[in-house]
Amino acid sequence: MKQININADMGESFGAYTIGDDEALMASISSANIACGFHGGDPLVMQKTLALAQANDVSIGAHPSFPDLQGFGRRAMQMNLDEVYAMTLYQIGALQAVAKAQGVRVSHVKPHGALNNMACEDGELAGALVRAVKDVDDSLVFMAPVLSQLSIEAAKAGLKVAQEIFADRAYSDTGSLVSRKEKGAVIHDAQACLERVIDMMDKGGLVTASGKLLPCDIHSICVHGDTPSACESAAFIAEGLRDKGYELVGLDQMSFSG
Amino acid sequence: MKQININADMGESFGAYTIGDDEALMASISSANIACGFHGGDPLVMQKTLALAQANDVSIGAHPSFPDLQGFGRRAMQMNLDEVYAMTLYQIGALQAVAKAQGVRVSHVKPHGALNNMACEDGELAGALVRAVKDVDDSLVFMAPVLSQLSIEAAKAGLKVAQEIFADRAYSDTGSLVSRKEKGAVIHDAQACLERVIDMMDKGGLVTASGKLLPCDIHSICVHGDTPSACESAAFIAEGLRDKGYELVGLDQMSFSG
Amino acid sequence: MKQININADMGESFGAYTIGDDEALMASISSANIACGFHGGDPLVMQKTLALAQANDVSIGAHPSFPDLQGFGRRAMQMNLDEVYAMTLYQIGALQAVAKAQGVRVSHVKPHGALNNMACEDGELAGALVRAVKDVDDSLVFMAPVLSQLSIEAAKAGLKVAQEIFADRAYSDTGSLVSRKEKGAVIHDAQACLERVIDMMDKGGLVTASGKLLPCDIHSICVHGDTPSACESAAFIAEGLRDKGYELVGLDQMSFSG
Amino acid sequence: MKQININADMGESFGAYTIGDDEALMASISSANIACGFHGGDPLVMQKTLALAQANDVSIGAHPSFPDLQGFGRRAMQMNLDEVYAMTLYQIGALQAVAKAQGVRVSHVKPHGALNNMACEDGELAGALVRAVKDVDDSLVFMAPVLSQLSIEAAKAGLKVAQEIFADRAYSDTGSLVSRKEKGAVIHDAQACLERVIDMMDKGGLVTASGKLLPCDIHSICVHGDTPSACESAAFIAEGLRDKGYELVGLDQMSFSG
Repeated sequence: MKQININADMGESFGAYTIGDDEALMASISSANIACGFHGGDPLVMQKTLALAQANDVSIGAHPSFPDLQGFGRRAMQMNLDEVYAMTLYQIGALQAVAKAQGVRVSHVKPHGALNNMACEDGELAGALVRAVKDVDDSLVFMAPVLSQLSIEAAKAGLKVAQEIFADRAYSDTGSLVSRKEKGAVIHDAQACLERVIDMMDKGGLVTASGKLLPCDIHSICVHGDTPSACESAAFIAEGLRDKGYELVGLDQMSFSG
Repeated sequence: MKQININADMGESFGAYTIGDDEALMASISSANIACGFHGGDPLVMQKTLALAQANDVSIGAHPSFPDLQGFGRRAMQMNLDEVYAMTLYQIGALQAVAKAQGVRVSHVKPHGALNNMACEDGELAGALVRAVKDVDDSLVFMAPVLSQLSIEAAKAGLKVAQEIFADRAYSDTGSLVSRKEKGAVIHDAQACLERVIDMMDKGGLVTASGKLLPCDIHSICVHGDTPSACESAAFIAEGLRDKGYELVGLDQMSFSG
Repeated sequence: MKQININADMGESFGAYTIGDDEALMASISSANIACGFHGGDPLVMQKTLALAQANDVSIGAHPSFPDLQGFGRRAMQMNLDEVYAMTLYQIGALQAVAKAQGVRVSHVKPHGALNNMACEDGELAGALVRAVKDVDDSLVFMAPVLSQLSIEAAKAGLKVAQEIFADRAYSDTGSLVSRKEKGAVIHDAQACLERVIDMMDKGGLVTASGKLLPCDIHSICVHGDTPSACESAAFIAEGLRDKGYELVGLDQMSFSG
Repeated sequence: MKQININADMGESFGAYTIGDDEALMASISSANIACGFHGGDPLVMQKTLALAQANDVSIGAHPSFPDLQGFGRRAMQMNLDEVYAMTLYQIGALQAVAKAQGVRVSHVKPHGALNNMACEDGELAGALVRAVKDVDDSLVFMAPVLSQLSIEAAKAGLKVAQEIFADRAYSDTGSLVSRKEKGAVIHDAQACLERVIDMMDKGGLVTASGKLLPCDIHSICVHGDTPSACESAAFIAEGLRDKGYELVGLDQMSFSG
């Protein structure tokens, strides 16, 4: 049976502030990227999110970010590589300890927001992130967009890499996301999202907006839970993949060949 | 040879802000309590402080605090026990990961500032801190003031407890520190500090301001490095203890009987 | 026509985080206590909340807090009086400047959360808050719970004081709120809330849970908007007061006798 | 008598952290750019710095920054213009209120660090800063580097502009600072600093590293106080300018022609 993973960002609430319907979404995914307190999340939210992942048999990832709660980690920041390296260690370790006390294990890391976007283009920044993951635990899976510098650097370092595609975003012929400002950049229909995901899985690569195929391994589908319809859409995609004979697995269960 | 430990707070600088002369003080101590970013410290400072401890063969402790950079962790805060538990895990884990990447190991935990002071009086708060330490790694040494609720709770939980005294502070007959507002509360002369430390070690307990002996095990002497003379004083005490035949050991080397 | 004011906390969203339905609630109130970035709110949220208040002809107040976003300003903190004084100035000024650029004016100040609760019991803390308000603009109205130290200190300083009662909370015979842990502490029925508010207004004082009357001036009714039913309840109380012949006025329109 | 202003960044300490020798430097300058809590400074530090400025008869400016205490406001951040506008209002207002309570007045604004650097190149960002200053108080002087977008936008908006040069930095032929990485970028000798300042004042423009003259009005000399020798250097420049017949004036005393 072919394996596939569905991942989503989780645990981004903070103190009195709630964001996302983690409980609804957790039922449809196989891996959770859990905020580590820098763009969202706090120690108690982390603990509750880990318990929720555990209850749903969802594998756990650290979701490190720039230190920017006000900007939700979405604003580009100019940090030097030493700072990025150290703050990535810090965030992974914080989650690991809360997880350990909860009796669960962190099995992957996926950078968040602007940090992720910048590292997809910038090999040096990607390298700092990858080094941190490798130095803290080289059995961690590194999750990165397909065809990104982040993915390339993680592979070069010998880490297991889970390459992800976005279910609801169009891709350009270079493999990058079509800007949200352009028409057709975001696919809103769940059926359309499912069909293109399956199309890409079948063809073994990214299918761009122009119809071009960019061959690559696809391990995970990224979904969102920021609206009720997004949660429904995620459930629909999960169900559709199961119907097509895919086994949905956590990243701790996935076999990474090569 | 009798063992003794000297500990000090370290790594409390933050970003562009420097506090304490860590480099000078590190040479005189055997264990460093390293700030974890909540009252001081940041990921890069943590990394540098760990390297400095490693270079000086000083054992490493996490120094978790209330989340209060502006107040340097010295202001009492009303946090519920679940929050205290989770934030303690978070801070220990953050330091563990930076330490792991650096090739060193966290061997003890000592709460900081107001969190420490409050937990010395409040068994429930002490219990939350102790549970966090035990749940993340029950081989960690818990450092706590002699005769405190913190020390009692840590022992009850079966953790190794390093009981500390302050070299430069007078004690009341209940075993608590004499308030800084009272005359004689702080001993400024290094020779006097050394003498009372040795007196207590010889007698096997706390000697209070009134001359009373409160028997207890003493594992560690807490010193400060906030002024040049404090650094000198710490060096003087370390030297004096060695002269008296004490072996200065990190908490990772200490034998805890019972 | 008898004047009355209805106030609510507003502008407590932060960055990507939304809290409260400000748009719905703003239609039912006459004064908004706007968060100043310390427990909630950020500069952009402040600006938008001011615009919303302006559009609804609602008078504007600063809602200063302890610096505790994670605890939403609800956790007691031990700050010295100089710090409290300075941080109160800071927060009022921040709102004043955003308001000035928006063409509106801050007309009152109401401390938030734990800072408010503590100052209701502690005359020295109340005094520090009152001094800050007086020193920045002595024409500002100070809003404080009836029969509190905060109200007493503000009056002593010669400030105009808007004394508030809570529509949905029971009072003990000392004039303090009945603890939420006790039965009957919170009145959930909007009709019951309205009736007791009108009863107190008619009788000219606080009516306690035991039925005792504690005479005092009542200028404002505090309502909440944290749930959809809370917003409805606020609208119901506003409507009921108008029906009873009360004029709902902003604090900038209220006449303070004596 | 010809007027000149000397300005320096002040009040950048935070909580327990001290940075810069404000007391020594304040004696040599005529205007202080006071941190507003976003990159440094806190309400109490602001109050003390204002008192120090007042005691030294130094005019007062707000020194708004990106919200980045850890990076000391030196890291570029991608904020949208609405956020920049609102946070600039916020910071200016915070200082104005603390100043008002202290009996002094904010007379200028100078953006800090990365925000300043970015706005010198980016007219839109400069425009957002300028609008904020104009909207909160159009009598405020805007301080900006000579020949920068910031200076141009402030002038276009009709604000009084104090154009500054750096005493210790070499300029390229485009009027920008020579990168610190290049040889000769920083002038370390106080006598050399003084001579080039006077040379530029005499010639009425920027003298670049290559010897080219770029004509412009110069109102202020920026000096630093981050080291003891920097404080001495500032005092030397102040003295040298007085010897040459310049009157050192605060920005509240300066006449801005045209």
